[in-house]
Amino acid sequence: MQLDNLVSSDSLEKEGWTALERSILYYKGRPVGTVAAYDATVEALNYDQCFIRDFVSSALIFLIKGRADIVRNFLEETLRLQPKERQLNAYKPGRGLIPASFKVVCEADEEYLEADFGEHAIARVTPVDSCLWWVILLRAYVVATKDFSLAYKPEFQHGLRLIMELCLATRFDMYPTLLVPDGACMIDRRMGIYGHPLEIQALFFTALRAARELLVCQGNEDIVTAIDNRLPLLQAHIRQHYWMDLHRLNKIYRFKSEEYGKAAANPFNIYADSLPYYELDRWLPRKGGYLVGNVGPSQLDTRFFCLANMMAIISDLASEEQSQAIMNLIEERWEDLVGDMPMKICFPALEDEEYKIVTGCDPKNIPWSYHNGGSWPVLLWFLSAAAVKTNRVELAHKAVEIAQARLHLDEWPEYYDGKKGRLIGKQARKYQTWTITGFLLAKELLRNPTFLPLVTFASFSVEPASRACEFELVEANTLYFG
Amino acid sequence: MQLDNLVSSDSLEKEGWTALERSILYYKGRPVGTVAAYDATVEALNYDQCFIRDFVSSALIFLIKGRADIVRNFLEETLRLQPKERQLNAYKPGRGLIPASFKVVCEADEEYLEADFGEHAIARVTPVDSCLWWVILLRAYVVATKDFSLAYKPEFQHGLRLIMELCLATRFDMYPTLLVPDGACMIDRRMGIYGHPLEIQALFFTALRAARELLVCQGNEDIVTAIDNRLPLLQAHIRQHYWMDLHRLNKIYRFKSEEYGKAAANPFNIYADSLPYYELDRWLPRKGGYLVGNVGPSQLDTRFFCLANMMAIISDLASEEQSQAIMNLIEERWEDLVGDMPMKICFPALEDEEYKIVTGCDPKNIPWSYHNGGSWPVLLWFLSAAAVKTNRVELAHKAVEIAQARLHLDEWPEYYDGKKGRLIGKQARKYQTWTITGFLLAKELLRNPTFLPLVTFASFSVEPASRACEFELVEANTLYFG
Repeated sequence: MQLDNLVSSDSLEKEGWTALERSILYYKGRPVGTVAAYDATVEALNYDQCFIRDFVSSALIFLIKGRADIVRNFLEETLRLQPKERQLNAYKPGRGLIPASFKVVCEADEEYLEADFGEHAIARVTPVDSCLWWVILLRAYVVATKDFSLAYKPEFQHGLRLIMELCLATRFDMYPTLLVPDGACMIDRRMGIYGHPLEIQALFFTALRAARELLVCQGNEDIVTAIDNRLPLLQAHIRQHYWMDLHRLNKIYRFKSEEYGKAAANPFNIYADSLPYYELDRWLPRKGGYLVGNVGPSQLDTRFFCLANMMAIISDLASEEQSQAIMNLIEERWEDLVGDMPMKICFPALEDEEYKIVTGCDPKNIPWSYHNGGSWPVLLWFLSAAAVKTNRVELAHKAVEIAQARLHLDEWPEYYDGKKGRLIGKQARKYQTWTITGFLLAKELLRNPTFLPLVTFASFSVEPASRACEFELVEANTLYFG
Repeated sequence: MQLDNLVSSDSLEKEGWTALERSILYYKGRPVGTVAAYDATVEALNYDQCFIRDFVSSALIFLIKGRADIVRNFLEETLRLQPKERQLNAYKPGRGLIPASFKVVCEADEEYLEADFGEHAIARVTPVDSCLWWVILLRAYVVATKDFSLAYKPEFQHGLRLIMELCLATRFDMYPTLLVPDGACMIDRRMGIYGHPLEIQALFFTALRAARELLVCQGNEDIVTAIDNRLPLLQAHIRQHYWMDLHRLNKIYRFKSEEYGKAAANPFNIYADSLPYYELDRWLPRKGGYLVGNVGPSQLDTRFFCLANMMAIISDLASEEQSQAIMNLIEERWEDLVGDMPMKICFPALEDEEYKIVTGCDPKNIPWSYHNGGSWPVLLWFLSAAAVKTNRVELAHKAVEIAQARLHLDEWPEYYDGKKGRLIGKQARKYQTWTITGFLLAKELLRNPTFLPLVTFASFSVEPASRACEFELVEANTLYFG
């Protein structure tokens, strides 16, 4: 099947499709992913690799366009890169991890894949999000193809189980959230999102929901039970402790501190002085709200993080009411959150002393640049999916229009800088694959909302609802599911 | 045996012994620990509990004075409080954890112990250090009593194994260090010691060494192998990446940044601008050095943390040369680190914006108070043990003299405030047990250095050197070890 068949009439989209085709990575003759960027004007560095998180938007668009083969190949190859042995060791990737990226290496006519679990990465950050995205993507593949057989293969069931074991393992703390080091996600530089950042928790919740649908219960009873236990706790924890709106700000502002005991109203011992309460008083719309960036001991990071808030809507981590409030916030604070390029990865930027202390003086993350308040076109598809889910498509249409006026002229840059997003990112690559696919995917989701279930989840119910468990039941009755 | 027998002629010590006797906590008629403070003038809050970390200095002094029974009771009771079941759950303490504290509750003439794993604590901090201290203390008990039978009991072997599993489990990152949330140790408030703080790593290394001596190899081959793999990696990692002296500062100051690939000289992508290099240039003595507080992505926390640096010397985590350099630093920067009350928990304090951002405006941790640059008499015993180990006892004698001139008059406060430590801590309890035992223990270690092996370790060798493994060998030859 040629990509030509897929191209829409729109010339901008056509350009996107051509660039996407060019970005496909081949391994032993089979397409297995897409490179991060195809910018001939600068040194490749690691942009010639396929990043797991970057590939997600490529994969979704491939699934929509009937190119499930690439996604299947990707899932199979990355699964092979997952360490399967228990390694009570260090300096080796733990069992269950999926790498941040891989590249095709050619030596003496022999091709092989080389994975990077963070040991090559700048600052040696750990890609916790990779294994979560892998599960989310496997479920999207199954939804798109209705082919459960891939997920039910023993090696896929084993891979899923290892990821779940890694995520659900006993740790030191007692929160339902996942403890991670700084920079463990798309924001892969120090940005103060260590501990229990929302950016990871939203993906964690989504991956748990996806895994619950895919895991065959037989032989995985412990994991399935653990997921069933965790999901409602995690959802309630985030909905309660991470929520911010005027009502909640009022409560937090008057919190007593130093409370000892289980009944504490201020369990995390937040001091109102540490919050920009005067800014939030002004900024929060009456009917808007959002999930804050992080919660920890005496820590409430009130920054708005886009990916996590959108994923919270998509996965049903946020309640229906909260989802509408988040979309209200985007509408009411459009100039701040969308401006001239959708959309801000986080808001506001860390500035002055806070920038220096929290990022460690990272010159790539200066205020209103890159991860620190930069604008990322890839986020367009997250916004569109959330908009479709909440019946607020007018917001997504408006954002797409803004983006399409510039992406072609600017040659699809990775990110934009400035308060309004009018500067092409200082170190941005051109023809960044997920900028292209983010745009194409947003278009497709708006054009045909029936594709939404690739990524969305229905209202979470505590009843066990595994598709795989039903399957077993059916099998037990000697019927077969195709 | 009455404590009267133990009292030395020194009246200050006598007062200490009397206060210690009064602090003993009884459970069903048996002594099982010591309360945190016995200050009749203020409400007990949680100071009527036995904190695991606080009890360590009491335990060591009890062992020295032949009251091993209390330590044995403590180890047995806290082991009973350790969750033994696998809990792929949240809001429940994980398998293997030892609580932060416990108290004796009396209901309808029935006594029972109530544990706190952080769920009652202010800000809900997790006591990661508790399980590490428990292992270290069990080993001290064995060294003191030469009675291996307690450690070899199946329930103790099982408890040890669970702690090791918890610590050595596969996690997301690939460092040999332990990932923890903020406030996971003696510094149990937000102080920027999240991620891989030295305060935890030094205890982790010590606990691994202790566990290696105590674990019976048979049936624990996987754990023992994992410990043998981890110890040299952890030691080398800390000695290399956490070390700070003039030579190292020069290197870091001229680091290139944004290096990609395994060969990076600046693997953590540290920006020199984020360091107080001009202060360190002035402060570091020519022959002094220390292990820094934390290392992470674009993060090098150059604060000096006392407990961890002393434990690094005691446990052989620091090299012989590094140990001497740390003692040189204390000698040369005596006014900063010891001043008028030994000794600073960390130096320097976080001030101004950094204080606000890193502590979350914690009013208890204002600059030069409590955990943020306060002075803690309990650290006297850590200093003394390190001084004896490095043959620098004159430093410890000098510190003890400074302390004994004030502790009695000030009624043994928990901590002191101010740059020189001349203010009794703003919220300090009086008759704080570990202030008393820290002083008594320092005295005993200086008086009789043969007690040092209770806490110290010989030079680490990669050869398996488990006492328990030898024991098995002997058993296999049908000989018996008493």
